[in-house]
Amino acid sequence: MSIKIALLGFGTVASGVPFLLKENKEKIVQAAHSEIEVAKILVKDDAEKERLLAAGHDFNFVTNVDEILNDDAITIVVELMGRIEPARTFITRALEAGKHVVTANKDLLAVHGTELLETAQQHKAALYYEAAVAGGIPILRTLVNSLASDKITRVLGVVNGTSNFMMTKMVEEGWSYDAALAEAQRLGFAESDPTNDVDGIDAAYKMVILSQFAFGMNIAFEDVGHQGIRNITPEDVAVAQELGYVVKLVGSIEETPSGIAAEVAPTFLPKEHPLASVNGVMNAVFVESIGIGESMYYGPGAGQKPTATSVVADIVRIARRLSEGTIGKAFNEYSRELILAQPQDVKSSYYFSILAPDSKGQVLRLAEIFNSEDVSFKQILQQGTDGEKARVVIITHAVSKTQLEHVSAQLKEAADFELLNTFKVLGD
Amino acid sequence: MSIKIALLGFGTVASGVPFLLKENKEKIVQAAHSEIEVAKILVKDDAEKERLLAAGHDFNFVTNVDEILNDDAITIVVELMGRIEPARTFITRALEAGKHVVTANKDLLAVHGTELLETAQQHKAALYYEAAVAGGIPILRTLVNSLASDKITRVLGVVNGTSNFMMTKMVEEGWSYDAALAEAQRLGFAESDPTNDVDGIDAAYKMVILSQFAFGMNIAFEDVGHQGIRNITPEDVAVAQELGYVVKLVGSIEETPSGIAAEVAPTFLPKEHPLASVNGVMNAVFVESIGIGESMYYGPGAGQKPTATSVVADIVRIARRLSEGTIGKAFNEYSRELILAQPQDVKSSYYFSILAPDSKGQVLRLAEIFNSEDVSFKQILQQGTDGEKARVVIITHAVSKTQLEHVSAQLKEAADFELLNTFKVLGD
Repeated sequence: MSIKIALLGFGTVASGVPFLLKENKEKIVQAAHSEIEVAKILVKDDAEKERLLAAGHDFNFVTNVDEILNDDAITIVVELMGRIEPARTFITRALEAGKHVVTANKDLLAVHGTELLETAQQHKAALYYEAAVAGGIPILRTLVNSLASDKITRVLGVVNGTSNFMMTKMVEEGWSYDAALAEAQRLGFAESDPTNDVDGIDAAYKMVILSQFAFGMNIAFEDVGHQGIRNITPEDVAVAQELGYVVKLVGSIEETPSGIAAEVAPTFLPKEHPLASVNGVMNAVFVESIGIGESMYYGPGAGQKPTATSVVADIVRIARRLSEGTIGKAFNEYSRELILAQPQDVKSSYYFSILAPDSKGQVLRLAEIFNSEDVSFKQILQQGTDGEKARVVIITHAVSKTQLEHVSAQLKEAADFELLNTFKVLGD
Repeated sequence: MSIKIALLGFGTVASGVPFLLKENKEKIVQAAHSEIEVAKILVKDDAEKERLLAAGHDFNFVTNVDEILNDDAITIVVELMGRIEPARTFITRALEAGKHVVTANKDLLAVHGTELLETAQQHKAALYYEAAVAGGIPILRTLVNSLASDKITRVLGVVNGTSNFMMTKMVEEGWSYDAALAEAQRLGFAESDPTNDVDGIDAAYKMVILSQFAFGMNIAFEDVGHQGIRNITPEDVAVAQELGYVVKLVGSIEETPSGIAAEVAPTFLPKEHPLASVNGVMNAVFVESIGIGESMYYGPGAGQKPTATSVVADIVRIARRLSEGTIGKAFNEYSRELILAQPQDVKSSYYFSILAPDSKGQVLRLAEIFNSEDVSFKQILQQGTDGEKARVVIITHAVSKTQLEHVSAQLKEAADFELLNTFKVLGD
């Protein structure tokens, strides 16, 4: 038996798909219980088609998606075009035509996932997207299969390779944000407009998807707070090091007594925490649960072959389910009503970096402000001054979002204090 | 629908099973498509039964395995007794009775796995054992499902928590082997006879199972070389640190041009390698493959709840397959003919610690010996002497097992050299 698939798009990741299908054919056939054949590939126009054929790519390239959607021999459609449109329309039409769909398009899934999953269910079609979160790390299927027996309490993820590459340069080599960004752009890790990566938007999309798999809750992108890495200074990084921490952009989802809370924020990780040694463009998802306790899944977050491997794993799974006659089950069946946490239940230690007048009694004044909101200090450090201003760094014990807001507001009101930065601190 | 299961044994891990089934009931029912009920539990004798009932355990304890094997209402038998007999007989009889079996018994699977898997196939019964390798890490099912599309080239594992706890003490706190063992025994991590853990036997069992899942090859326990941690000295650990390495007991399986090679040996890991920061009783499996590249799966290697979580994940999977009517497929279907590597194809850098006379020309003599076998140095270090003897430490570039043997033999023949230790070095 042979299963015919079609690719929508033939960029970097897509061209990795036929490579893997050929290179690992024997193993894939054993796992899929059938051969898998790339029958058609959608490209933009005739010019691209001619260019690819001239470059020696021996595939049946088509320029009209209808040639794929109307082809009853094609069972699986693999969308690797990226962005929202026309991917959204093509996936919807493919599902409506009863075809199974594999995609790596996290932006689309984070924003229109619910609608697409409903269309898939209506037509008893599979919609799989392992590659959408942390490209090469098999995290979604692992959450579905292996953690089905466990109750997850928190997920922490270093899931944006670009910002992690930059943070690694900033932490290990003391680079500034601007220098790290320039290097990331030079190496092709960051786009000319780096907003999605450095402002935590890309990581927040991934938190939306992870919240469905880890907590069975469909949190909206708008409900995932995101703070990026733009305003992290070399001074913040240096003081973190001094206090035993590494700064990274970390996505988190946790279940509190009142509901779940998800956010993306620069976070001080204790040096010995497994996430602290995830460097460069590598990604990792750290899972805390009542059964396993702590587990971590580490690998490349992007790249041609890693992403294509996850895409092909999805294709194999669909082929296997077709051969077993069990196709059409949702990728993720874990589903609970969404309940968002109350701010007073979302707790963490925090780092405050404050510029204060270099005169007597300032630490006492700060202590009074924190104390008035019932926030206690874990570490405090007063740093080198220019004679007029002192930099005071405070790491608190766990405080709620509500307390955090109140303390920050008081610090901003106090005319002679300047609140430079506030970051989450893992631990406590 | 409700699925009735029976537990064989009610030790630490087993008692975690009903805990998880109850604690995560809602999620488990969604994943399994049925309720799961612990119908009977086999215990040793009436005394144990009375003791457990008196302690408030509200289960149907039985003392004769036939009460389980002859009970047609019981679909899944969960063996958590450990050791070879009577586990082997009970599992065989359960499979012959058409019951599906979940076990965490790695010794049994490593030695009699082939026979048990054949029995399972004959009776179209499932035999799952996720918990047998690295207890709480969902590594086996991940290899089956998510790496089906990938070709694995090497697996490295820190898979024995006891020896890793000891090595962590030896590396981070400079403890001797004896002190580390005494502490491991005091904390209950090591048995009074620690042979299986410290000599690499337990890790070798796990390599047998991992070779089936990662390479589709059924390597025999006898073909997994194993060297333990008994003769690692504080001097070895210190020099490793100085040269930028961390010493750990590492299991490895790799595919060479001529076939696969598996062994367990103390290994120098570069400090920045992800396995180097796997500390204490934690385990990790590091996978190198042509698709993903490098990925790592990290978590607790043992313990009640982690192991029970993997056991329950297997139970859920069987229940799910029963509801879908697809039961009876082998846990791992990847299968190729076993071909063992030729010694000349198994290559690694090596560390040599040599006691030499503290006189002129000794390094030259050593260089001649290594050179005569075509082995080149990567690092060389001559250390503090007592006036008569000098300790020379050499890290080589990659050498084959054949070259390693020849050099070692020459060093042993040279009357005034004493070869103190030889360990693998990762890298190069």
